[in-house]
Amino acid sequence: MIIGFNCQQTKDIGIMKTTIKLRKPSLEAGVIRPVEDGNINLVNMDFEFSVKNNKKNEIRGKHSLKATECHTITFSVSENPYRRSFKLLSTKMWNFVFLPEDLSRRIMSILQEERKNCTFNRLEITNLLDGSAKATENRRELERFILSFPELQDKIPIDYLSHEDRYAEELRKACLLIRKGFEAPGNDGQANTMRYLMGAGVGSAVLKEGNPLAVHFVMFVPTIMNQGTPEQQMEWLSKAWNCEIVGTYAQTELGHGTFLRGLETTATYDPTTEDFVLNTPTVTAYKWWPGGLGKTANHAVVMAQLWTKGKCHGPHPFLVQLRDTDTHEPLSGIDVGEIGPKMGLNTNDNGYLGFKSHRIPRTAMLMKYSQVLPDGTYVKPAHSKLSYGTMVFVRVVIVSDACQQLMKAATIAVRYSCVRKQSELIPGEPEPQIIEYQAQQAKIFPPVAACFALKFAAFYIIDLYQETTQRGEEIDLDLLPELHALSCGLKALSTTDIGQFVEVLRQSCGGHGYMSNSNFPRIYSQVQAAYTYEGENTVLWLQVARHLIKSYKNGGNYTSSYLSEKEIIRSQKLSGNIYDPYFLETVFRRTAFGLVRRAAAELDRLTAQGMNPHIAWNKASVLLIDAAKGHSRYFVVHNFNEKVASIKISQATRDVICHLRDLYLVHGILAYKGDFIMFGGLSDLDIVGLQSRQSYLFEQIRPNAVSIVDAFDIRDEILNSTLGVANGDVYNRLMEEAKNSPLNLTQVHSSFQNYLKPFMNAHL
Amino acid sequence: MIIGFNCQQTKDIGIMKTTIKLRKPSLEAGVIRPVEDGNINLVNMDFEFSVKNNKKNEIRGKHSLKATECHTITFSVSENPYRRSFKLLSTKMWNFVFLPEDLSRRIMSILQEERKNCTFNRLEITNLLDGSAKATENRRELERFILSFPELQDKIPIDYLSHEDRYAEELRKACLLIRKGFEAPGNDGQANTMRYLMGAGVGSAVLKEGNPLAVHFVMFVPTIMNQGTPEQQMEWLSKAWNCEIVGTYAQTELGHGTFLRGLETTATYDPTTEDFVLNTPTVTAYKWWPGGLGKTANHAVVMAQLWTKGKCHGPHPFLVQLRDTDTHEPLSGIDVGEIGPKMGLNTNDNGYLGFKSHRIPRTAMLMKYSQVLPDGTYVKPAHSKLSYGTMVFVRVVIVSDACQQLMKAATIAVRYSCVRKQSELIPGEPEPQIIEYQAQQAKIFPPVAACFALKFAAFYIIDLYQETTQRGEEIDLDLLPELHALSCGLKALSTTDIGQFVEVLRQSCGGHGYMSNSNFPRIYSQVQAAYTYEGENTVLWLQVARHLIKSYKNGGNYTSSYLSEKEIIRSQKLSGNIYDPYFLETVFRRTAFGLVRRAAAELDRLTAQGMNPHIAWNKASVLLIDAAKGHSRYFVVHNFNEKVASIKISQATRDVICHLRDLYLVHGILAYKGDFIMFGGLSDLDIVGLQSRQSYLFEQIRPNAVSIVDAFDIRDEILNSTLGVANGDVYNRLMEEAKNSPLNLTQVHSSFQNYLKPFMNAHL
Repeated sequence: MIIGFNCQQTKDIGIMKTTIKLRKPSLEAGVIRPVEDGNINLVNMDFEFSVKNNKKNEIRGKHSLKATECHTITFSVSENPYRRSFKLLSTKMWNFVFLPEDLSRRIMSILQEERKNCTFNRLEITNLLDGSAKATENRRELERFILSFPELQDKIPIDYLSHEDRYAEELRKACLLIRKGFEAPGNDGQANTMRYLMGAGVGSAVLKEGNPLAVHFVMFVPTIMNQGTPEQQMEWLSKAWNCEIVGTYAQTELGHGTFLRGLETTATYDPTTEDFVLNTPTVTAYKWWPGGLGKTANHAVVMAQLWTKGKCHGPHPFLVQLRDTDTHEPLSGIDVGEIGPKMGLNTNDNGYLGFKSHRIPRTAMLMKYSQVLPDGTYVKPAHSKLSYGTMVFVRVVIVSDACQQLMKAATIAVRYSCVRKQSELIPGEPEPQIIEYQAQQAKIFPPVAACFALKFAAFYIIDLYQETTQRGEEIDLDLLPELHALSCGLKALSTTDIGQFVEVLRQSCGGHGYMSNSNFPRIYSQVQAAYTYEGENTVLWLQVARHLIKSYKNGGNYTSSYLSEKEIIRSQKLSGNIYDPYFLETVFRRTAFGLVRRAAAELDRLTAQGMNPHIAWNKASVLLIDAAKGHSRYFVVHNFNEKVASIKISQATRDVICHLRDLYLVHGILAYKGDFIMFGGLSDLDIVGLQSRQSYLFEQIRPNAVSIVDAFDIRDEILNSTLGVANGDVYNRLMEEAKNSPLNLTQVHSSFQNYLKPFMNAHL
Repeated sequence: MIIGFNCQQTKDIGIMKTTIKLRKPSLEAGVIRPVEDGNINLVNMDFEFSVKNNKKNEIRGKHSLKATECHTITFSVSENPYRRSFKLLSTKMWNFVFLPEDLSRRIMSILQEERKNCTFNRLEITNLLDGSAKATENRRELERFILSFPELQDKIPIDYLSHEDRYAEELRKACLLIRKGFEAPGNDGQANTMRYLMGAGVGSAVLKEGNPLAVHFVMFVPTIMNQGTPEQQMEWLSKAWNCEIVGTYAQTELGHGTFLRGLETTATYDPTTEDFVLNTPTVTAYKWWPGGLGKTANHAVVMAQLWTKGKCHGPHPFLVQLRDTDTHEPLSGIDVGEIGPKMGLNTNDNGYLGFKSHRIPRTAMLMKYSQVLPDGTYVKPAHSKLSYGTMVFVRVVIVSDACQQLMKAATIAVRYSCVRKQSELIPGEPEPQIIEYQAQQAKIFPPVAACFALKFAAFYIIDLYQETTQRGEEIDLDLLPELHALSCGLKALSTTDIGQFVEVLRQSCGGHGYMSNSNFPRIYSQVQAAYTYEGENTVLWLQVARHLIKSYKNGGNYTSSYLSEKEIIRSQKLSGNIYDPYFLETVFRRTAFGLVRRAAAELDRLTAQGMNPHIAWNKASVLLIDAAKGHSRYFVVHNFNEKVASIKISQATRDVICHLRDLYLVHGILAYKGDFIMFGGLSDLDIVGLQSRQSYLFEQIRPNAVSIVDAFDIRDEILNSTLGVANGDVYNRLMEEAKNSPLNLTQVHSSFQNYLKPFMNAHL
């Protein structure tokens, strides 16, 4: 329940407009505070107020409003807060526009009604998606802890701030968030808590637009751990972990992205001084993009071409101090700055970095694998793939994080689709909730199903990563190609699909989805960043395809073992029950097989014409990418079936998950039905049957829809969406946010006198 | 050619950093000016400079740099500007980081090389897309005129500003732009020039993030023209046209979008005073979204439920004054403000508006069609559809405008794809231009082809609109359903497809496409707004579907006449040449027919089960939407073929257009191949053939790619993209923009002392 009104002062003391809110309506005590004054000067004024309950008991008070202050009035009531009414007594100074209280109550009851339809145990799904009941508890405890600090909340939404102010404000909160993280309950001194604070979870409730210290924890520290010698770890790790130094990971250059070998930054060894000399020979060699590099970091792991004894040994990591730790001034020979506004993540202070004959000691090269001896002799690593560990790890993290973003978007859209009423299903009847429209269900339910499919796939890849690296220092080389291909495929698949799903979900909320405070624009911009960083998706698809073509020709193993099953023949029509998820899994497998075979056949055809195999690879790229996508989709479907078969859960909850699983499969086939007809053995009639099946599944999912997204268990502060609030009080939230706009602090903006009035008076 | 360097003063006079640029390299005269100083205080200083040409002739000069001023140094040279070198002579005060000049020259030569491959006459395509040679001339003249005013350019990119400052700055330019528009050459005193200034053309070079006065010209003025009586036009039109009053169009409410009948705002007639009383009965009844409403407009056309003599006659338009024209204060009973930040169009000051017993005279109702007599008698209009003219007109405009946005995105991506080099096609060879990769061609060429397809469709719908309304006051009622369905279908198709194309184009530019200064994020956000406004696309698809089902059952005419051709039978396999565009057009028609028939059959099946036909309509929505899309795609393909057959153009240019047309058709089939197999009569082998055909077409288009987007003839100022600059100097532009970031005006941001240093020193 929010009561808002406009306050307008008499002219002699200027114009003031503000909003007074009755906060925390569900608590026993309430707070009234005027919004902050922003840039206008408030004059001092006193007012009286009263709060009444339905028994006509009244609490009266006085409050003094002082210029440029934030005010809080607390009072206590013990009755049902929805029956309270609020009144300002000094009415002659105020011009009220009350938001109707009864309407607010009515809207909020909609989601309560939805929740009554729940047929399953929400906590079971919450635990399943967290990984365990213990994981849910830990997450909730951390959330409660972090969200208990008002100083971690925005005074004004950062969308209203300038680029510069936004950075400063977020840096303030970033420093504070990490301090709190160290004090957090259950913080084991390990990087896990910090990583959780950097991702799309509770940290995103504090730092909505990016954390300038995130790369420090997600890439800088892990790279020292993975690639530093014990001595280097001794020297750097505790300082980095305590944030005495703040680092970033500088690999990408202005002219060079995914193709590591193309990097132009050089590190040339000078044995006379036992130094490396860093140089940025061209404008395209400038480091570009590293998060936190612009204004925050004073150190970086820099990837540079290693030259020694006149020979280049390719890109290697160097730990470079960029700025004086005391003054923060860039060191001599270093040109560092911020790259400017982006589609999103605008407080990440992504930066550029150039070197002009900047010297660092030999021991600044991270030497766990490759080494340069004092005399300049280069010592090769035992296994060349070992040094890419950080990027594989980050890809694994991206899959989970993208899932979290999809869960947010799905939660917002499902709840809003229940609150929003529009148009007519049957002429003359009241406007229905838009979730009743099949066209709406077709937009919002497949993404809900995909949350499960992709989350389970994320669990698989995390396990695989841990299995591969489980023996501490020793890496399972046999599993490396599988880990590489699967992490590439799942990173590309999850960010591609989730990007599209998020936009469909936003569009499903109509105009209001376009409001920044819906949080869709930000969620989308962050998923789109993940589309490109840590390996652009098209490049990754082609790496998956290379693995598949190799497996197809030489026999596959692990998730590509089916490519060895040559007996699957395209022309042979399958017969099976399209209601059977295992039959549909077979259809996915056959289709993936067919797409790989088709791409391989195209490669063979082109090379048979005498084409250079590399040129042929390029000319077959479109088909190769299709094959990689088909394979990755098959894996996700297979893993979904495996997971459903293996989980221990009540039958009612299992039924819900089975419907979602079935929808994920059916929707996946219908979305790419051409491939499934051509390669999966499905007939036109099967497609028609699957269309009916999809309608049926929509109806099955509909009654539990709100409860399913409730089970994602995302607190309002983390959801950060006017449209997705758990109590369903959408329209009042939208109005409340609007009233907070700095442009609404005055009735007439100064630009009227400056520009509009002269313009209107010009009589053009 | 831009030469930039950092300037750092000695410590005793503080730190200053700026960029000096050699501007207008292609002109005979150059300009050197330091960027504006922003918020830091520059001290006064003198420096000398010299400009040399390749014959060693030198121009020397002195310049005095004063605090807080913008400086321009002009000089004249007559030699090839690319051979000039620039040197600051007073070096001891400056610390240079030169961007390598030779690299800059090399990158810029790439697009020149591309342009040498052009096989056709670019101007022919430019004229074709403008509509005529005269239209090209007029557009160019207007562009030259508008872009000649430096006061219409941003002093600092608005992305750096706060929400409030951004609004003020854009309002300043909006007023100025319209003044200039009135003085523009060829301004016919009609709304055409103004509308051009409001769209994605030259106006977007001035107002990048929305124009608070756009709705005034695009909807407010046309609505008075279309719906006002002669007396009302007399009273309001000249004032509106001269901008003595500034208006908006207030229809959408917080709780009500596309469904007009659901509006809650009421206008109740009071015959005793001959007034209408306006009320906003609930929070959901607040007007929400109108552009310019927040802080700019002082009038609005308000759509409200008309009540008279105790009866509601549905939504009608009222002309309402909102603010005092002198003080700009909201009138009593009016609650108006700005709704807050959005995904884009942030300087449109979209607003909210509530009424509390606000009275307006009877004559404020726009009465050209419906009327209320002084005694309260309601007089019905002759034809109920006539009052929706403004929305149909705006949809027609949206199609053209969305095309312009796609042309921008395609221009940026194609040019950048030539400049950008990455990875290896053949191991050991130099990094190729990324446009050589088939995967890249598959992303960027189909959108280029779609520019033509959708632009030609836009021409068709504009003609149809004019034909329908050609007889001045008299509207061709027979054509209205066709105009309605086609404008809905093309608005939905163009904004849906263009939205997806723009994102693929952005993704094709990797990380740099994520930079705001690539202009992709803004183009995307604006296309996405058009997805939803003036009829949400899903709602529009269903309206198209209603028209199609009616045509299927009762016989169609105009563009849906093929639905009467019942002899087309799905099971009969077509035979034809997949290289023949007319055969492919037949495939599109058959597919559209099949999709409509499939949806109709589903409706029949459901109603045969006894289902209420309205419920059945809902349960068949997914199939109905597919049918509407299929029909609209068929129309665009058919129209493309018609256009190619009818234009008079040289053979070389026609060849280029034919390749693009063929690609549009082939790509359209492959993107939805399931439908074309199920309904279009295509076999698996046809699909394989079309995949090869697509590869072939990519290769045909490749050599002309840059010249084709050049022919879109979009000036750099309008393109507004670092990645899309016509001279190809991408990397220097990116670096130049970054150096302008306010965060880079100091080496150490104040937030370091405030937050980061205490944090690092805390030894966590």
